[in-house]
Parts: sequence; C-alpha cells; structure tokens
Amino acid sequence: CQYARTGEHLIHNLYGKVGGIRMTQEILDEEDEILKANAADVAKAKERGMAPGLVDRLELNHKRIEGIVEGMRQVVGLEDPVGEVISMKRRPNGLLIGQKRVPFGVIGIIYEARPNVTADAFALCFKTGNAVILRGGSDALESNKAIVTAIRNGLKKEGIPEDAISLIEDTSHETAREFMRMNGYLDVLIPRGGAGLIRTVVENSTVPVIETGVGNCHVYADESADLQMAERIIINAKTSRPSVCNAIETLLVHESVAAEFLPRFASAMAESGTEIRGDGRTCTVIGAVPATEEDWATEYDDYIIAVRVVPSIEEAVEHIRRYSTGHSEAIITSDIGAARYFQRSIDAAAVYVNASTRFTDGGEFGLGAEIGISTQKLHARGPMGLDALTTVKFLITGDGQVR
Amino acid sequence: CQYARTGEHLIHNLYGKVGGIRMTQEILDEEDEILKANAADVAKAKERGMAPGLVDRLELNHKRIEGIVEGMRQVVGLEDPVGEVISMKRRPNGLLIGQKRVPFGVIGIIYEARPNVTADAFALCFKTGNAVILRGGSDALESNKAIVTAIRNGLKKEGIPEDAISLIEDTSHETAREFMRMNGYLDVLIPRGGAGLIRTVVENSTVPVIETGVGNCHVYADESADLQMAERIIINAKTSRPSVCNAIETLLVHESVAAEFLPRFASAMAESGTEIRGDGRTCTVIGAVPATEEDWATEYDDYIIAVRVVPSIEEAVEHIRRYSTGHSEAIITSDIGAARYFQRSIDAAAVYVNASTRFTDGGEFGLGAEIGISTQKLHARGPMGLDALTTVKFLITGDGQVR
Repeated sequence: CQYARTGEHLIHNLYGKVGGIRMTQEILDEEDEILKANAADVAKAKERGMAPGLVDRLELNHKRIEGIVEGMRQVVGLEDPVGEVISMKRRPNGLLIGQKRVPFGVIGIIYEARPNVTADAFALCFKTGNAVILRGGSDALESNKAIVTAIRNGLKKEGIPEDAISLIEDTSHETAREFMRMNGYLDVLIPRGGAGLIRTVVENSTVPVIETGVGNCHVYADESADLQMAERIIINAKTSRPSVCNAIETLLVHESVAAEFLPRFASAMAESGTEIRGDGRTCTVIGAVPATEEDWATEYDDYIIAVRVVPSIEEAVEHIRRYSTGHSEAIITSDIGAARYFQRSIDAAAVYVNASTRFTDGGEFGLGAEIGISTQKLHARGPMGLDALTTVKFLITGDGQVR
Repeated sequence: CQYARTGEHLIHNLYGKVGGIRMTQEILDEEDEILKANAADVAKAKERGMAPGLVDRLELNHKRIEGIVEGMRQVVGLEDPVGEVISMKRRPNGLLIGQKRVPFGVIGIIYEARPNVTADAFALCFKTGNAVILRGGSDALESNKAIVTAIRNGLKKEGIPEDAISLIEDTSHETAREFMRMNGYLDVLIPRGGAGLIRTVVENSTVPVIETGVGNCHVYADESADLQMAERIIINAKTSRPSVCNAIETLLVHESVAAEFLPRFASAMAESGTEIRGDGRTCTVIGAVPATEEDWATEYDDYIIAVRVVPSIEEAVEHIRRYSTGHSEAIITSDIGAARYFQRSIDAAAVYVNASTRFTDGGEFGLGAEIGISTQKLHARGPMGLDALTTVKFLITGDGQVR
C-alpha cells in the first residue's frame, strides 16, 4: 500500500506548536497557484453544466482563502485533546490502569467538490495527531492538488513527514471503493457530503465509518406552546438557511392550537416565499399543497415545509420516530411534563425544548470546531469536535503481576 | 421487518429492578427443558464429528446452568450507566446543553455454538436498556431456543415486551448476511467468536460493527528486564490459558540478555509442554523449531510460542507494529525510559509494563462485566463493560432561542 501508516509519535502535537503557522503561511504564499488551479476547475465545471449552487461551493477567491486560513488558525488555538488521561485507578492487585486519549492513526475523508474541506479536514486531523488521506470530488481536483501541495511544502519545511496529508488523485469509483476497504491502513472513514455519498460509503466500506449529516428534522408545537415563540423558532429553523442539515423539514402542530397558529405561520412562510405542503386537516385551515407520504420522508433542503396536525404529543412522537433521521428534533411547549416526555421518547442526536434546531453545530455547542455532525450512535453522536478524532488506549503498569 | 425497533422508554432500567430475578428464576425452572435441548444439540454435533474442545463449549449441565444464572445476577447488581449525564453546560446565549447516556436501541450479536453467550449477551444488553437480536451458531440452535424461551417467559410475566430478546432461528448464511445489512433496524452489531467469524462480519456488514477479540500478543524482555519477573510473566501469559485472546504468541528478547534468559525460558516451556519456534539467533542458543514468516503472524491459541532475538527496543517495537493485532502488548523492563517509549510507541488496546497480558479482561480491569474486547478504535477499545453498550444524546433546553 502506497499510504504508509504514520505512527502517532511522529506528528503528535506538533501542529499546535509550530506547524500551524508554517502551513497557513504556505497557503497564503501559494494563493496565486491555488486560485489558478481553482479557476481551471470552475471553468471545466461550468462547461459540464454544473448547477450554480455547486459552482459557488467550488469557487475560491482571496476572501475565501483568508477564511480557510482563519479557520486553520482557530484550530491551532484549540486545546489538544491528545494525551488526556480519561481515567486512572489502582486495582487491588496493585496494577495501575490508566486510559489515555490517543490519535486514531490514519483518517480517511471522502467528500464532494468543496476545496475548503481539504484544508479544514487536514487542520482537524493534524491537530489531533492523525494522518489524513483525502478523496475529494473530481470537480475540485486541481484546487485540492494545489492546497495539498502548499500544506505538504509547509510540513517539509518543518521537518514533519509530508504524508501527514495525502490526496488520492485518481478520482475513479474503483479507487474510491478500494479506499473504503483499506482495513489495516485506514482506522476510520468519514464521509462529508450529501445523502447519496454517505449511503455509498456506508454500503461499500469495510473500514469503520462515522456517518454524518443527513437531517430530516421536525418541530412540534405542543398544545401548551407559546405561539409567539413557536413562530419565531419555526421561521428560524426553516428559513434562516434551508440548505443545511439542521434546518427543519416538517412542522407538527397539536390540533387544539392549529386553528389559531396555522394562519400566522402561513403568513410568515409567505413572507420568505416558503411553500407549505399540508395534510388534510392543515389544508382545511390554510392554503397548502396537499402533502403525500413522500413529503414526510423528504429532506427538502429548500424553501418548502411539510405540515401535519396531530391529535396528541404521542402522535407527534410517533410521526417523528417514523420519519426522523435522528439528527435534531424540537418541541415548543410550556408544559414540563410534555418537555420531559419528548426528550425521553425521541431518539436523536439533539433533542430540543423551546429552541431552534439550527443550534446543532460544533461552534454553537462550544466544541470550538467541527468535523461533521454524526447521525450514528457508535463512537460519536451529534456535532463532533476534536475529541471525536481520537481513540483511547489502556496503559497498565505493574511490578510483575500475573493472573 | 419482523424485528420491530424497541424504544428505550419501554424497557429502560426495568431489568435491575424486577426482571432479573424473574428471568433467572425462569431459567432455573426450565433447566430440564434446556438440558434436554442441549443434549440433542450435543448428540448431533458429535455425530457430525465436532472437535472435543468445541463440544465442551457447547455442552451444558446443572453446574453450568447455575454459572449462567450467577453471571446474570452479577449483571443485575452492577450500576446502570443509562441516564448518566456526561456533561452539562450553559452557553452564553442561555441554552442549557446536556449530554446523557442512553441505550443504543437494538443490538445484534453474532456468535458461535456457545449457549452461555445467549444468556450473557441478553443480560448485558437488557441491563443497559437495549433490545437484543441473537444469531447463534447452528450447532447450538436447540439450546438457544430453550434459553430464549425461558427468558421470554420471564419477560412476559413481568409485563415487559418479549421482543427485548429475539433469536434468529434460520441459521443460513443468507439470513446472516441479510441481518448484517439491517441498517435502520439494528444500531450496532457485535460479533463474538473466532477470527473467521469476525472477518465475515466486518466484510459483509453495513450496520456499524464493534470488532472484538483477535489477539496476536507479544511480550518483549528488555535488556534491563528483571529476568525472574520476565520468566514468571511469560509463563503466565503463554501457558495459563493458551486458547484465549489475551495469551501471548511471541516472545521478543533483547540480544544482551538472550544468552542468559533463553535457556531458563526454554526449560520453563518444556515443563508445560510448550513448543518453541525460534528465529536464527534463538536456535543458536536453545533447541527450537526454526520459525517462518508465518509464525510471526499466527495466533496459535495453543502450547506453541515464537521467539525472536532483537538488537534493540526499536526493533522490538517495529516487530510488534508489523504483526500485532492491536490487542495486548507488554514490555518487561527496569528502565523507565524504555517503559515510556514502549507505551507511547505501541498502538494497541492495552499496553503493559511489567505485568502479564492476561489481565486484559473486563473483570480484571474493574468493569464488572464484559461483552467482549474491542480491537478496533471506534467507540470502544479494550475490554467493554456496560458503558460500551450505550450511546449519548444531546438534550438542549432554551426559552425561545434562535440562531
């Protein structure tokens, strides 16, 4: 295998001390090269007819390069979780057993045509003493090559093994599939992108995967909800940035407040140009496109919201259980019993009472940085900070104990 | 899907309170049925020519049933990790963000013909509020059916949903493969058994897997080792129970102590009838079968040990890096620098200084119980107690915050 395993002792902890400054400087120094490579990617992408929203994610400029470097500098400033002793105990037989946080080793990231992820993923992996192997989208290949070259130059100048970052330049599906089966070389694989990419990785990978980011999120307005608060939260959760995974897709509303709440909700949605797709009861109260079964399961990522009137909190919970992707779910209520029931019954990474689901984010949760939002239950769940990029090992010290 | 997802609220925490007593009683009450079913399994297995060691693992008797029940009772007595609040903070915007330990949901266990695992896995999963779906080896099918029936009867009498435990009675490979791809129904899959079983699960599963138990473990006797201690530890690590995963397979010995140490090591091995397979230098000092490349990579699980003389601790570390399965590794040394270097450089679940690798065990580490020993880095590493059968969720409480 061309990607040799890089031991923790090689690079552990160097980034925060010296490497960060050099690597960010190198990216600034090579800005012209990076922008030239990016322009080539963008031109090709436009030729191929890439959608404008995707072109926007692909495109770099001076301000975005500065943003990338600023993001890396923030990671440099975070506290390093590696080396933290999680537990330490002396057993009756005198053995001293400690558990210490250590790097995973080699982390693989599979992502789409977003060159900012290249620098961001490197910063987070390197800060935690991990080597990273990147497999980005083919549309961003030239940009990624330029950024990785700059980072490798910085590593070289610091005397750090350049293989702390590698880019897979062959963007074929065959190579991606091979990459996903590199057990023994890759310790963990993190897909960052849309639902299709994540599904492909989950279905094809034999390397352990941390699944991220698909969000079919709900807000439930309870019978005891403060309706003004409900309106404010729903507007925020749906319309502040509909394309992100922590935005809501469906509103559930208790039947006892539907008649009063839905008209004001409808006019708020009209203001932002948000289309409403309602169940039968919703459509008797406000003008709405009739919702189909498919609507309940859809992550629109757009100015569209599905609405359903429910007879009870139990039915709201039942609906969420059926359609939720386990990302973020919220209840608006003044009843502490309802709040507790909701938080206990809903099985999701983040369960909110009286706040917008838009807060599900590493920065907002105080983690300092974020490698993604895990929607699986193994290892990490919810926004993942630096801790999620580490594992632990047991260190046992004795004076000759045998069993 | 016939195995409905069982929500945490249904069964969480009931076991420790009442269920445990009833379910263990039920197993004792139905002992005759269980032993009859087991006798049928054993008879069939012998007919098919099963190896005596495997028949021994399959066979139950009154004492073993008592052992199973005693194991379940011990789990009942452990502290329940579910509901523990791992962290709680108030953000500057007033949001209260807590992280709480909750059950996974549904845990799948794939294992071989060991009926004691059936009761044991149920006890651990149920104690942590999880439903469990078991797929045991076909050779133990009748025994497993009898044990599961007893447990389900106990659940029913307590008014707890019987689907807290299910047994897949169709033991075909096709059904097993389907089971491994039940994403959305199964939250995690834990294989318990030999290397072949584990490899099959890792390669075929799309459900997140916790890999357990393969151990190619080493002891390195450093130049500064107390040779009496080294001898005691090696005898224990190799011969106290060679069939288990925390037993050692290879001894590495520093060249400066090889001439003095190897002869006494050889006579200790002779006493237990352990075969020595040595590298060239070993064979010049003691009588040994010449070791091949294959020997370094083999988990003998038997009275055989490979021996290699190394010129330095760095070479010992290099050898371990190359052949270790990341389970348990030990150094015998009086030099604190060597101890630190070894613990830092070796990437394994448990890294020992001056103690036997045989301590890698949930009970010995003070976890109270053990569902297995994880040799992967995701989620859990090393002996897994009840904590490893839980996940977390973020619970966020606000008073109308939007982003």
